[in-house]
Amino acid sequence: MVRILGGAPRRTGAGLEPAVVIGPGDDAAVVQPPRGARLLLTTDLLAEGVHFRRRWAHPADLGWKLAAVNASDIAAMGGRPLWALLALAVPPGLDGSFAAGLAQGLRAASRSFGFTLVGGDTCASAAGVFLSLTLAGVAGPRLLTRDGAQLGDQIFVTGHLGASALGLAALERHGSIPLPIPLRRCARRHLHPEPRLAFGAALAGTGLAHAVLDVSDGISRDLGRLCAASRVGAEVQADRLPVLPSTSRAARLLDRDPIAAALHGGEEYELLFTARPQDERRVGALGKRLGLRVTAIGRILPRRDGVSVVGTDGRRAPLAPSGWEHF
Amino acid sequence: MVRILGGAPRRTGAGLEPAVVIGPGDDAAVVQPPRGARLLLTTDLLAEGVHFRRRWAHPADLGWKLAAVNASDIAAMGGRPLWALLALAVPPGLDGSFAAGLAQGLRAASRSFGFTLVGGDTCASAAGVFLSLTLAGVAGPRLLTRDGAQLGDQIFVTGHLGASALGLAALERHGSIPLPIPLRRCARRHLHPEPRLAFGAALAGTGLAHAVLDVSDGISRDLGRLCAASRVGAEVQADRLPVLPSTSRAARLLDRDPIAAALHGGEEYELLFTARPQDERRVGALGKRLGLRVTAIGRILPRRDGVSVVGTDGRRAPLAPSGWEHF
Repeated sequence: MVRILGGAPRRTGAGLEPAVVIGPGDDAAVVQPPRGARLLLTTDLLAEGVHFRRRWAHPADLGWKLAAVNASDIAAMGGRPLWALLALAVPPGLDGSFAAGLAQGLRAASRSFGFTLVGGDTCASAAGVFLSLTLAGVAGPRLLTRDGAQLGDQIFVTGHLGASALGLAALERHGSIPLPIPLRRCARRHLHPEPRLAFGAALAGTGLAHAVLDVSDGISRDLGRLCAASRVGAEVQADRLPVLPSTSRAARLLDRDPIAAALHGGEEYELLFTARPQDERRVGALGKRLGLRVTAIGRILPRRDGVSVVGTDGRRAPLAPSGWEHF
Repeated sequence: MVRILGGAPRRTGAGLEPAVVIGPGDDAAVVQPPRGARLLLTTDLLAEGVHFRRRWAHPADLGWKLAAVNASDIAAMGGRPLWALLALAVPPGLDGSFAAGLAQGLRAASRSFGFTLVGGDTCASAAGVFLSLTLAGVAGPRLLTRDGAQLGDQIFVTGHLGASALGLAALERHGSIPLPIPLRRCARRHLHPEPRLAFGAALAGTGLAHAVLDVSDGISRDLGRLCAASRVGAEVQADRLPVLPSTSRAARLLDRDPIAAALHGGEEYELLFTARPQDERRVGALGKRLGLRVTAIGRILPRRDGVSVVGTDGRRAPLAPSGWEHF
């Protein structure tokens, strides 16, 4: 049996700051939340053959990504992660280096995102690796929800789009053999996403954003969710989508359309949000301060207008999720 | 894709009482813990082919059991469960009645144990059903840990032992066909365990118990854990183990030894704890008040004496886990 969590329970003092009172080793972990704070709770799972294949995903990448996708949900609410619980099922034949690699990736994420692994459960799996992580975090001064978009808002996205889906396509086609640099960059993006914790916390501090969520299933699907929750429509300009030159080169190498990858590709873990058009400069300044590109990609319309995309040829089409599902 | 969690986020007011501020539907759930309280966090998973088979486990039983095994960890710390997150992977072919049954079992557990399902994640599974639940609860006035057993303590266990393992054996042998009554009772015990939440909370209120854990892997394994954490030894009297007459009858029908089932059989979800011998009457009164049998089954010894069992023939033998693992 894989052991990620070892030994006897540790105890530390508890005060007004969040603290781990009892870590792994007893029936449940005991934690002290900050006094009066609201907590954020989220869980995400990664399943072998659905989200990843062991022939191209190193266990350390899986540990990192499992934590990153959960931390991205905390970022999208404007909070910061505090405590994690791991549930892990692995086939009996899998050697100890898998657990060691997974623990290494989780530790790196724990240091980078600021959470403590306080407990978990492991068991044998009759078929395939299943990983699920739960993160508990503390909310910021404001909750960033997806239901507050206002008519006339600009739509913004952090970072860049399209690379993760192309990275997955490259890994599926070529596996872990050395890839040309553009494909390698995309594969890295797919395997090692960076949740936008600092930017989410800054948004929660300023109150600039009306509606926020993270791009886990692609702009087309996630913008649809934001619009449904906010009861509005939206229009995205394809030529404004932030696509890196290396992502466009990767798309050419794979004979794929970079705009389609940017619109429909999932697992980007960027923040998609809306704010008043007159706040565009302040939004840009926030990104600059945190070293993160922020791009206006469209605007919020009345609900009756639906959700559409204006193509690079100027033609408008309904924006519906398509074609970039998991394998 | 299975949908257990539906619709748009719900919002409720938050005060000094624990509250769900935003339930399922946004990037993360938002909850308000009771002011100043310590929280308990635990996660457990159930894997098809390891913990259950679909040919004999109804989805509603799985939903109940998933919640019960987690709630048992909260009970063993003396707390009460507040919020749950579900992670679920199911094969694409599995019909909607599976999700409906699972949700039904979870709802029944949620009402019975007093928690709210606030979020989750579902995905397809390439092979088999995987369920993992995380419970967050509030700690009682005292934490019930496993490391406080004192030399000379009596060892107590709630309820009765042996039935769950025999129930699993019956289900494995006969499947879901109508079983003779003793086997049916054991199967019910295996599929529908009752976490000892009221008794755990009462123990946390009184301070009677020195060390507490729940019997998830069998007395032999779990008493060993309690002794290791407390740095003591122990002696169990086989003839004192609480075994129901129907459990003994089931053992005969299955040609198994009921004492071995009571010592080594897992998934009982009773509380195993130690207290001073002079408190035996108060412990018994607590059980009587809550309608729960509590039995003294042995005593705590110096660490050098190890963990042993005195058989019905009066012979002492080391008590090591054996023979009642998962299939």
